[in-house]
Amino acid sequence: MSGARRFLILAEGNFGPQSSKTANACIRYSPSEVVAVLDSTNAGRTSHEILGFGGDIPVVATFVDAVAKAPNALLIGIAPAGGQFPAAWRTIVNDALRAGLDIWSGLHTMLGDDAEFASMASASGATIRDLRRAPHDLDVSYGRVRDVAATVILTVGTDCNIGKMTTQLQVQNAVRQLGHRVSFAATGQTGILIEGRGIAVDAVVADFIAGAAERLTIEAAADADIVLVEGQGSLIHPAYSGVTLGLMHGSLPHAIVLCAQPSRTLVHRNPWVPIPSLAKMIALYEQATTYLRHAPVIAIALNTFDLTDDAALAAVDQVRAETGLPVTDPVRFDPSPIAQAISAFHVARSMSL
Amino acid sequence: MSGARRFLILAEGNFGPQSSKTANACIRYSPSEVVAVLDSTNAGRTSHEILGFGGDIPVVATFVDAVAKAPNALLIGIAPAGGQFPAAWRTIVNDALRAGLDIWSGLHTMLGDDAEFASMASASGATIRDLRRAPHDLDVSYGRVRDVAATVILTVGTDCNIGKMTTQLQVQNAVRQLGHRVSFAATGQTGILIEGRGIAVDAVVADFIAGAAERLTIEAAADADIVLVEGQGSLIHPAYSGVTLGLMHGSLPHAIVLCAQPSRTLVHRNPWVPIPSLAKMIALYEQATTYLRHAPVIAIALNTFDLTDDAALAAVDQVRAETGLPVTDPVRFDPSPIAQAISAFHVARSMSL
Repeated sequence: MSGARRFLILAEGNFGPQSSKTANACIRYSPSEVVAVLDSTNAGRTSHEILGFGGDIPVVATFVDAVAKAPNALLIGIAPAGGQFPAAWRTIVNDALRAGLDIWSGLHTMLGDDAEFASMASASGATIRDLRRAPHDLDVSYGRVRDVAATVILTVGTDCNIGKMTTQLQVQNAVRQLGHRVSFAATGQTGILIEGRGIAVDAVVADFIAGAAERLTIEAAADADIVLVEGQGSLIHPAYSGVTLGLMHGSLPHAIVLCAQPSRTLVHRNPWVPIPSLAKMIALYEQATTYLRHAPVIAIALNTFDLTDDAALAAVDQVRAETGLPVTDPVRFDPSPIAQAISAFHVARSMSL
Repeated sequence: MSGARRFLILAEGNFGPQSSKTANACIRYSPSEVVAVLDSTNAGRTSHEILGFGGDIPVVATFVDAVAKAPNALLIGIAPAGGQFPAAWRTIVNDALRAGLDIWSGLHTMLGDDAEFASMASASGATIRDLRRAPHDLDVSYGRVRDVAATVILTVGTDCNIGKMTTQLQVQNAVRQLGHRVSFAATGQTGILIEGRGIAVDAVVADFIAGAAERLTIEAAADADIVLVEGQGSLIHPAYSGVTLGLMHGSLPHAIVLCAQPSRTLVHRNPWVPIPSLAKMIALYEQATTYLRHAPVIAIALNTFDLTDDAALAAVDQVRAETGLPVTDPVRFDPSPIAQAISAFHVARSMSL
């Protein structure tokens, strides 16, 4: 592929504010690179109508409908739990490869290792980019990140899929405008797609989660005073908590931003796990850091996408009163309260060194 | 390979009580299957002289010296941090394969995927068994283990390499003698070698740690009233804590046995992390379970291998007084105190259902 990326995003049956995480982030941060979304159940509508952003990017029903928009790449925009490749998508990937489109995928299934796809890509000159493919030379962590001078800030969540990547991307510019050199350390497939580098820590061999996080953080610190590390999962998520803790212990944040969604009371796809109070979640996260490098929670990022304006403002006020911390919805409102908390923490830490 | 296994164990440069975990467990639980240990730095001595058990199993300097003992398999008995294959071992593995010996390996590096080894194995009729190879059809966890009736007991540790597998293996018979149907769920390469089944949860894709633990626990519960799950790592280990928490949240133990070594004050290979008090470790582990399925610590297993008899007895007494829990060294002393705690917990739980 030469020139700019022109993505057709595959989100079949699942294009929506809570169900197509990779698609949504790509549209939010790179809308000019998206020519259409493929979801037959929403065909004829626009991204704005469905997500509330993304303008008039059209939703189409079939690959043929999308061809008029001249895509040069197909992005797999939804991630089934477990990250496997649904057999129903084989036809569309084959159509795209036959037409010479590159494939960008964040699935656990490595599409580049599929013999049929590899053969078709080779024939049409297309490239298959597996965003979750792990480096081959990972090592275990030894706390090497303690040697970097930068201040490390990690987002964590009361649940998965709640805004940990988005919060870092939203506050990044605001922190920069406060005079700091900032970098974003991408730890998941969507962050890697946006940032252009990173390691999907949920796709590495389990013994190397922290080692991968350590490497990422050190690399991101090379040209920054503040490293914003993309969080993953949640310490109370039955499937992903191991990735969460490994990422915490590999990146060894100096401070933490906790992401929460006021309307969410049960863990994603695990309604048997109620989400505890913010006070309990703050205590749980701080406790998990304390024997390695203690990290306080310094701000709260709320995801209020499903609330009215009034309810969103009320939620921010209530959580601020409840926790005594800076609080905002960094997508809906000004991200400055979180950026200022990060900046102030960094300045205070630098002066104490 | 037909008939009984006759292992030559490779432990070059590292045969010792703290440095050759897989070798030692194989010698402890299957001594009749071990014909020699290969470690040129200890050649001429016996297993008993070096480990304190294993009788007169000889240590030899070279593969040629071992041939007189008629091994039919080479077991990789030491695990470098990170689990990679040291280049220096290639010659011995080649010698073994050329002589038709099977290779048993628990490394992260899959020896069966090495083209040279695969080709030599094919030529000589040998089999390469990678104990850490992950199943291809793993899924994320959904707390399915809540559906099994068996009582699930997990060992956890103040550190890695401290006795979590050994404790379960030592108490297994004692629990059985108390009248329960017991099974052992192996979660690491050595446990799998001994038990003949299991999944190395530290070698799966990180997103599937808990899913693998869930599957293991459900399978082990099929024919048991009490499942003894082999623990991994430690919640305070900088490299392995993610595996530890994922295993906890996938297996969802009803109760926990905490393993500790009185003489150890710093985390293995990470001397920058002091090991907190047992009271703090108990609180940390119980806290990590509480929002999914609360599990109390019901007994303490001490690893006193490096203490005198008097000091070991004193340590047991002191920890019993300090924690108020049943305490023993299940290798050195009678494992019954832990077995009785497990049995009593199971009986009380069964009556309350």
